[in-house]
Amino acid sequence: MRLVRPLENLIDQLVKLPTIGPKTAQRLALFLLKVPEDEAKALAEAILEVRLQVFPCSVCGYLTDLDPCYICQDAKRDKNIICVTEEASDVISIERTGYNGQYFVLNKEFHVMEGHDLDEINLDSLEDKLASGEIKEVILAFNPDVDGEIMARYLASIAEAHQVKVTRLAHGLPVGGDIEFTDELTLRRAIEGRYEFME
Amino acid sequence: MRLVRPLENLIDQLVKLPTIGPKTAQRLALFLLKVPEDEAKALAEAILEVRLQVFPCSVCGYLTDLDPCYICQDAKRDKNIICVTEEASDVISIERTGYNGQYFVLNKEFHVMEGHDLDEINLDSLEDKLASGEIKEVILAFNPDVDGEIMARYLASIAEAHQVKVTRLAHGLPVGGDIEFTDELTLRRAIEGRYEFME
Repeated sequence: MRLVRPLENLIDQLVKLPTIGPKTAQRLALFLLKVPEDEAKALAEAILEVRLQVFPCSVCGYLTDLDPCYICQDAKRDKNIICVTEEASDVISIERTGYNGQYFVLNKEFHVMEGHDLDEINLDSLEDKLASGEIKEVILAFNPDVDGEIMARYLASIAEAHQVKVTRLAHGLPVGGDIEFTDELTLRRAIEGRYEFME
Repeated sequence: MRLVRPLENLIDQLVKLPTIGPKTAQRLALFLLKVPEDEAKALAEAILEVRLQVFPCSVCGYLTDLDPCYICQDAKRDKNIICVTEEASDVISIERTGYNGQYFVLNKEFHVMEGHDLDEINLDSLEDKLASGEIKEVILAFNPDVDGEIMARYLASIAEAHQVKVTRLAHGLPVGGDIEFTDELTLRRAIEGRYEFME
């Protein structure tokens, strides 16, 4: 089966995106051919614009279009607490919880099995903050897996060298979760982390 | 939660695509920010290019970048048989079967419940072909639903006015399907369409 080259090319580009398989890519490409031209153009321009205008904040590493980002500039936020995440997407999730402190985003994938090295992560701006004495607590918000564990230990050793308290996100039952279907490790952590019942 | 405007805008554009929900749109947008700039640009340019270079063939309505399309230009294809489809995507599927005739793509959605009118479908080029006497058979390849049935009857009446044989795609069990889980109507059609066993 031959498709015309520009259509084939668009499908090839779409299939590189996460969650998009060949069938969905074909469907999206045909959709982009069928919608009013303005709509297709708006998507193409939004992609170009995001690459031109959005970059990591020089202070915290979160995504921003002005530097420092609005979180770093916000005088009402707690300057004594900093939450370290691997990705900007983690900040988006944590912001929804109402957390009101600072962030530090590593913006660097770390997979020990792929031979990544912890030294490759640029922690200069975090170390400056820790050295300044402003930070009283570092929250390590890494995914609960092997790579997250390795990063957490590494970051913890650095924070402790500056005598700063280090905390981690709690493990336990997801809200709305079911004990029967919770894996053993999570349930063990939920028992270890049990807290006093208060009415 | 506030995202920077260009990122918010990209997510808004992505969410308009079929099969893309808000979570996937956010994931795709962050992915497009993370990949090398060339890759993001290649996608944006592929979208713009497909709109500039791809259009419906003036003869058959299939998607092409030269007019008439490669199917209409192919001297080796059977000129006596024409397959009528609603969308270009149907042609892509039918081409994979090895079908070697002509096509006529309506390129017009028809939903009787939304008040669409059959007169809105431009059949001029199909009627010219039927009038020329070249076509010996019209295959109606519409989806097996109410709208497809209405379009099929309409197209059949036109083809029959030109004394051209009209056929439809067979209904029956999907290959690899299971009789137990086949709906009643499909099974009834499979029985009606039964054919002689040959070894």
